[in-house]
Amino acid sequence: MDILVVGSVAFDSVETPFGKVEEALGGSATYFSTSASYFADVALVAVVGGDFPEKHVKFLRDKGVDLSGLKVVKEGKTFRWKGRYEYDLNQAHTLETQLNVFSEFKPVIPENQRDAEFLFLANIDPDIQHEVLEQARNPKFVACDTMNFWIGGKPEALKRVLKRVDLFVINEGEAREFSGEASLVRAAKKILDMGPKILIIKRGEYGSLMFNGSSVFSAPAYPLEEIFDPTGAGDSFAGGLMGYLASTGNVSDENIRRAIILGSVMASFNVESFSLDRLSALDFKDIKTRYSEFKRLTHFENM
Amino acid sequence: MDILVVGSVAFDSVETPFGKVEEALGGSATYFSTSASYFADVALVAVVGGDFPEKHVKFLRDKGVDLSGLKVVKEGKTFRWKGRYEYDLNQAHTLETQLNVFSEFKPVIPENQRDAEFLFLANIDPDIQHEVLEQARNPKFVACDTMNFWIGGKPEALKRVLKRVDLFVINEGEAREFSGEASLVRAAKKILDMGPKILIIKRGEYGSLMFNGSSVFSAPAYPLEEIFDPTGAGDSFAGGLMGYLASTGNVSDENIRRAIILGSVMASFNVESFSLDRLSALDFKDIKTRYSEFKRLTHFENM
Repeated sequence: MDILVVGSVAFDSVETPFGKVEEALGGSATYFSTSASYFADVALVAVVGGDFPEKHVKFLRDKGVDLSGLKVVKEGKTFRWKGRYEYDLNQAHTLETQLNVFSEFKPVIPENQRDAEFLFLANIDPDIQHEVLEQARNPKFVACDTMNFWIGGKPEALKRVLKRVDLFVINEGEAREFSGEASLVRAAKKILDMGPKILIIKRGEYGSLMFNGSSVFSAPAYPLEEIFDPTGAGDSFAGGLMGYLASTGNVSDENIRRAIILGSVMASFNVESFSLDRLSALDFKDIKTRYSEFKRLTHFENM
Repeated sequence: MDILVVGSVAFDSVETPFGKVEEALGGSATYFSTSASYFADVALVAVVGGDFPEKHVKFLRDKGVDLSGLKVVKEGKTFRWKGRYEYDLNQAHTLETQLNVFSEFKPVIPENQRDAEFLFLANIDPDIQHEVLEQARNPKFVACDTMNFWIGGKPEALKRVLKRVDLFVINEGEAREFSGEASLVRAAKKILDMGPKILIIKRGEYGSLMFNGSSVFSAPAYPLEEIFDPTGAGDSFAGGLMGYLASTGNVSDENIRRAIILGSVMASFNVESFSLDRLSALDFKDIKTRYSEFKRLTHFENM
């Protein structure tokens, strides 16, 4: 096991201009693990209810995901999210959230996973992210996601976590809200001052920006004819990124840049279908081909 | 003379969160010419009133701009635009437009400029753009800009122009409006079908996308700490782009990509100050340095 992810496993009901899906497999840890599984061995710590079907367990296991940290609360129900996207696919409109067993989630990292070198704290309560950090033993590289709900509701808890993470991944609006700066360059400086060595600002269909204090990297999004369903794009991005870092064991600036492109590759596949349909059905050569397409997409010669 | 530009010369009064300026030199042809003048010889066709001061004429002449096509209507007043930007600097709010002499603009290209190889039709009435095309003799490369006002008001006139242009430059919202497509990839296909060989979609602080039917290029914007005043960014972009193409005489895909980066370089300088203050005070080595910074900003190695 190279990477440990702590986050949600959920049922998503999603409507987009292109169709809808009911109670499909979703959740941050699910998208992350599926994406990372193309590059590295992943263990997942999450909680589901007694209604979580065996076929989903089998799906993740077939991807090589270590589920010994997946707690099943027999008498409970799995986390459910219901959302809609309009033509502006950068913006999810939440219709309903049923936290169910997730509201009592107290992650316990199995003993044999506490030495994981790469740790991803998906978007959960920053106090719980902190508990995970307390259980981990000397990880080499910790990445962390969050959302506006925690930025607004628990900024101090989030700042405590940020002191201990290497990479913080956040979206553009959240970066502005958290820093109180309209300029992303200023926002990045303020956020890096809180502790993370690297900040990645996700900009949806515009790609992402990486800041590490000495270098800035701008990665495009892949220009798709249709973005079918953006759900899970951020976690697929993080999964590709962390998967590649873990598989190479190299967190240099150059390798982080490659990893960001691979994250963008995985996110671009993910949004081509509902749920994990496309993301879970890739060959490694599909990934390599799209990486080359990103190279061509951004290539220009010296003057 | 390598490039001929037909557009506006104006007085701009602009307010941004960082300050304000009253009746500063502006206009599409002014920004375009100043930017292009770093690369090539430019001639400008436009109209001003008797109130246009000698110092502005001298300013453009000192940049090497051929002003024999600048018509002065002694009894008239120069075009004035008044606008404000909020913190979202992608969006200009027009407070007042006084067309003045511009409302009667009938461009006449001086005889010795009708053989210009590179022609830029800045954002003006597409019927006037068409008249300019009728006067030009066999240009090698024609580029054209427009705005939502003409897309909504004179779509057929615009389409008549597009059949005869090599490069069409438009912003993201306009591309969606003009094509009726939310997806930029689909929008680009539809617009290329109208005639242009190359389409560049400008996305403000997110950079730009180039489509030519066989290749797509994504260029970032330069991540500035402050965007002081976005006025003229699009025309500075077009000026750098056309200036470089004209100076090299090469309109291959590879060279268009370089030219787009140089356009982005010039736009990034332009937005660092009000009016033409920064854009007009560059050394060529400033341009080369920022080009290298774009290279580093987008660089990633093969997998």
